[in-house]
Amino acid sequence: MAKQEKDLSVLFYETLKDIYYAEKQILRALPKMAKAAQTEELRAAFLEHREETQGHVERLDEVFDLINKPARGKTCDAINGIIAEGTEIAEDFKDTEALDPGLLAAAQAVEHYEISRYGTLKTWAAQLGLAKVVPLLEATLQEEKKTDSLLSKLASATVNRKAAA
Amino acid sequence: MAKQEKDLSVLFYETLKDIYYAEKQILRALPKMAKAAQTEELRAAFLEHREETQGHVERLDEVFDLINKPARGKTCDAINGIIAEGTEIAEDFKDTEALDPGLLAAAQAVEHYEISRYGTLKTWAAQLGLAKVVPLLEATLQEEKKTDSLLSKLASATVNRKAAA
Repeated sequence: MAKQEKDLSVLFYETLKDIYYAEKQILRALPKMAKAAQTEELRAAFLEHREETQGHVERLDEVFDLINKPARGKTCDAINGIIAEGTEIAEDFKDTEALDPGLLAAAQAVEHYEISRYGTLKTWAAQLGLAKVVPLLEATLQEEKKTDSLLSKLASATVNRKAAA
Repeated sequence: MAKQEKDLSVLFYETLKDIYYAEKQILRALPKMAKAAQTEELRAAFLEHREETQGHVERLDEVFDLINKPARGKTCDAINGIIAEGTEIAEDFKDTEALDPGLLAAAQAVEHYEISRYGTLKTWAAQLGLAKVVPLLEATLQEEKKTDSLLSKLASATVNRKAAA
C-alpha cells in the first residue's frame, strides 16, 4: 500500500483488528481467571464479564460489517503482555492471600487497555463520519468503565477483608 | 521463597518493580515520540510529560526507600508490548495524516496502563498501612489522569483539524 493511502480510515481499521484480537484473547483468559479466583464474588465477576466480552466481539463484528471490511484480528503485543503478566502472578501467588488482589490487578490492567482503545476508536469513528459505528463503540466503552469500577470496589473489599482477618 | 511468605507486601513490591521498569521505558520512548510528532502542540505535550515522568521515577525511589527495599525494575511485558505497538504505528504511518492520531493513541494506552497500576498500588499501600506511601502514589496517579485528559483533548482537536482540512 502506498504511503499516501494510509489515512485515518486505515489506522481505524488496523486498530479495530488490534482490539478484536485483544477481545478474543480476553475471552480465553477470563474462564482461567475465574477458575483461579479464591472468592465466589470474584469468580462470578469474571464469568459475568466473559458474557459481556462475547457481546463486545459481536459489536465489533457489526462495526466491521458497517465499514465493509472483513472481521479480522491482528496480534496485539500489548494485550499479550498484560495477560502474560496476569498468568505469571496467578502462578507465583497461587494459594496465597495475594492471589485475588493479583488477579484483580491484572483484570484492571486489561480493562484500562480496552478503555484507551475504545476511547480512541470512538473519537476516530466520529471524525470519519461513521455515525452508526460511534454508538456501538460507546456502548462497549461504557461497559468496560463500569467493569473497571466494579473491580476497583472488589479490590478495596478484598483488601479490607484481608486487613480485618 | 516459601509460598506462605508470599503475602500482599511481596505482591506490592513486585508490582512496584513492574511500574518502575515501565516508567524507565516510557522515559526513553517519549523523546522519540516527540521527535516523530507532526504538530508542535503534541511535541510539547510529550516533552512536558517526559519531565513529569522523571518526577514519577523519583517518587518511586522514595517509595522503595520508605519500604526499605532496593529500587529495582522488573521486565514488564505489558509496557513493552504497548510501546512496541506505538513504534510500529509511528513507522507504518510516517508522513501520513494518521501519524499524530496514532502517536496519541499509543500514548493514551501507556497512560491507561499506568493509571491501572498506580490505582492498584495505592489501594494496596493503604491496606498495608503505608501511610507515607499512599500520597506519593496518589500524586502520580492524578498526574497520569490529567495527562490522559490532555491527550484526549489533543486527539479530538487533531481529528477536528483534519476533518476541517
